[in-house]
Amino acid sequence: MAGDGELKLLGVWTSPFVIRVRVVLNLKSLPYEYVEESLGSKSALLLGSNPVHQSVPVLLHGGRPVNESQVIVQYIDEVWAGAGPSVLPADPYERATARFWAAYVDDKVGSAWTGMLFSCKTEEERAEAVSRAVAALETLEGAFAECSKGKAFFGGDAIGFVDVVLGGYLGWFGAIDKIIGRRLIDPARTPLLARWEERFRAADAAKGVVPDDADKMLEFLPTVLAWIAGKAK
Amino acid sequence: MAGDGELKLLGVWTSPFVIRVRVVLNLKSLPYEYVEESLGSKSALLLGSNPVHQSVPVLLHGGRPVNESQVIVQYIDEVWAGAGPSVLPADPYERATARFWAAYVDDKVGSAWTGMLFSCKTEEERAEAVSRAVAALETLEGAFAECSKGKAFFGGDAIGFVDVVLGGYLGWFGAIDKIIGRRLIDPARTPLLARWEERFRAADAAKGVVPDDADKMLEFLPTVLAWIAGKAK
Repeated sequence: MAGDGELKLLGVWTSPFVIRVRVVLNLKSLPYEYVEESLGSKSALLLGSNPVHQSVPVLLHGGRPVNESQVIVQYIDEVWAGAGPSVLPADPYERATARFWAAYVDDKVGSAWTGMLFSCKTEEERAEAVSRAVAALETLEGAFAECSKGKAFFGGDAIGFVDVVLGGYLGWFGAIDKIIGRRLIDPARTPLLARWEERFRAADAAKGVVPDDADKMLEFLPTVLAWIAGKAK
Repeated sequence: MAGDGELKLLGVWTSPFVIRVRVVLNLKSLPYEYVEESLGSKSALLLGSNPVHQSVPVLLHGGRPVNESQVIVQYIDEVWAGAGPSVLPADPYERATARFWAAYVDDKVGSAWTGMLFSCKTEEERAEAVSRAVAALETLEGAFAECSKGKAFFGGDAIGFVDVVLGGYLGWFGAIDKIIGRRLIDPARTPLLARWEERFRAADAAKGVVPDDADKMLEFLPTVLAWIAGKAK
């Protein structure tokens, strides 16, 4: 059977890309071994499984690696189509809409996230990235109304593709809120997303996976920055 | 039926992203109306159909817009699953592999393409982008051996997802070859890709869609550069 074979996930606990895969594995109630990688000294298994990008997450299914988080999420959804709710909608048009917004999140929110935490050299650069993040979240507020049709999640009644892709960033958003002294997902400006965040964090599939301790995230930040600085050498 | 409704494609003839969609429509033998957009004055239909990115391609299916070329290609493949060859493989693991390499092409080849033609300010910057393109193509030479399993295309016997995603760039590659005085897909360095290019260009689905007149592409280049300069204002 296509779903046979043990599952092992190589990850880093703060990574938005790892978190989304873990939420989907939980949604599908799939048992898996989680291996925490060290940014500074990645395992031979990681380097051998993802030689092109040498990055997490890597999902090993019966020993075969699947890379790139959005690819992994779709792989899990297709192989275990019968286990738990579908992450991608059944209707091709709704599926295209979900893929469009998932791509938007990693393009606009993802680049702003990098700018807010890792590539900004001055407070002005950070503020510019915050502006881009806020603008993208305002666009996503409209997308939520369109996709959810008044229900709890982008995916409707259940957590779907856009939910897990955006939800992966929530841990770092909490840390950024502390740095900038205001909320990125502001209940006054993006009320639908603010309520969505509460529901997403409270979902069983997200508990213990989406970080809720902003101070712990901020303690980890220098580790990421040191790793980026090392890569740039 | 899901496949009902007229098809209209808004495009620009040189766009790698438009070309890949047209090749897939041809592969599936789907009749469609092609509307050439003007970069300087985009139509109200385009702006209304893709308000988020305001970019081509837009596929209108029975009046409903689908945006983002990789999303459009998968939409066509899913709605018209029975028409012509499948663009994505049937096996989930092979599908994940195809999605991985398609993402790689738009990440690495796409950013180098922008750098070689549009964002480079000096010849040194262009040369640096050429180096990145060549390195990505060398990686794709290895991917071709892995995906094609000795057959004609990344998709095996038939043109598949990675073929159309990479094949969309071939028109501009011809123009870049003229600018830099050497071939990006060099038969000596990437012989598998060089033979793949010949086969892809000769395929019925690519004829009349993948530009083969490098001089005409170069004549169009100032139009693109003027549009980019206008956007930056």
